[in-house]
Amino acid sequence: MTKKSTLTINHFVALVTLEQFEESPKFVKNLADEIVKKMNLHVVDTVSHQFKPQGSTFVYILSESHLIIHTWPEFGKIHIDIETCSDHKNSDFKKTLNEAFSKYSVGSIEIKNPNFNLD
Amino acid sequence: MTKKSTLTINHFVALVTLEQFEESPKFVKNLADEIVKKMNLHVVDTVSHQFKPQGSTFVYILSESHLIIHTWPEFGKIHIDIETCSDHKNSDFKKTLNEAFSKYSVGSIEIKNPNFNLD
Repeated sequence: MTKKSTLTINHFVALVTLEQFEESPKFVKNLADEIVKKMNLHVVDTVSHQFKPQGSTFVYILSESHLIIHTWPEFGKIHIDIETCSDHKNSDFKKTLNEAFSKYSVGSIEIKNPNFNLD
Repeated sequence: MTKKSTLTINHFVALVTLEQFEESPKFVKNLADEIVKKMNLHVVDTVSHQFKPQGSTFVYILSESHLIIHTWPEFGKIHIDIETCSDHKNSDFKKTLNEAFSKYSVGSIEIKNPNFNLD
């Protein structure tokens, strides 16, 4: 796994509320790909699952750790969980989400950072 | 995705430090399976990746959300990330980890809870 001199696990967890939500597998994959590109992350493997009657989970294993997106269309909610061992800042994550959702009507974006030091 | 009346995303994140660490794909899968069993979680899909020269990521998509384990053998660290929409308590998670690591020499177990309300 990619290791930088900071030895910190930077963990970014967000709950995004959209005023209108039209879920599709393409919507979730496009969102994941946009986040990966904007944050300069590197995908090594993936898995996803579509729940019934609604809701989905999309996972990228990254060389930096992971990106997971869960959706709850019934609540208009998207949960985004990114963990990296590289030196991303919370401001990078906020900027990425603001840009990724700029074409949607966003109710709120809440962010938490359960970081740990590795050394 | 499983939805309960509490409408809370219970998120448990732990960094476990072991005094001796002997990594193998079997070690990580057995740990994941033990946590799933003890916390009565339900696996719907999986993906994993072995990094070189060392370190691994193991993912279970759950009907309740996800379980991800990252290992950094070079630091003796295991990072465990469980998200559930069912009504697990932090005490369940602590008890599960204490039992799962009871046969190892544990340096420390740190836990954080970046929970969100869905409604």
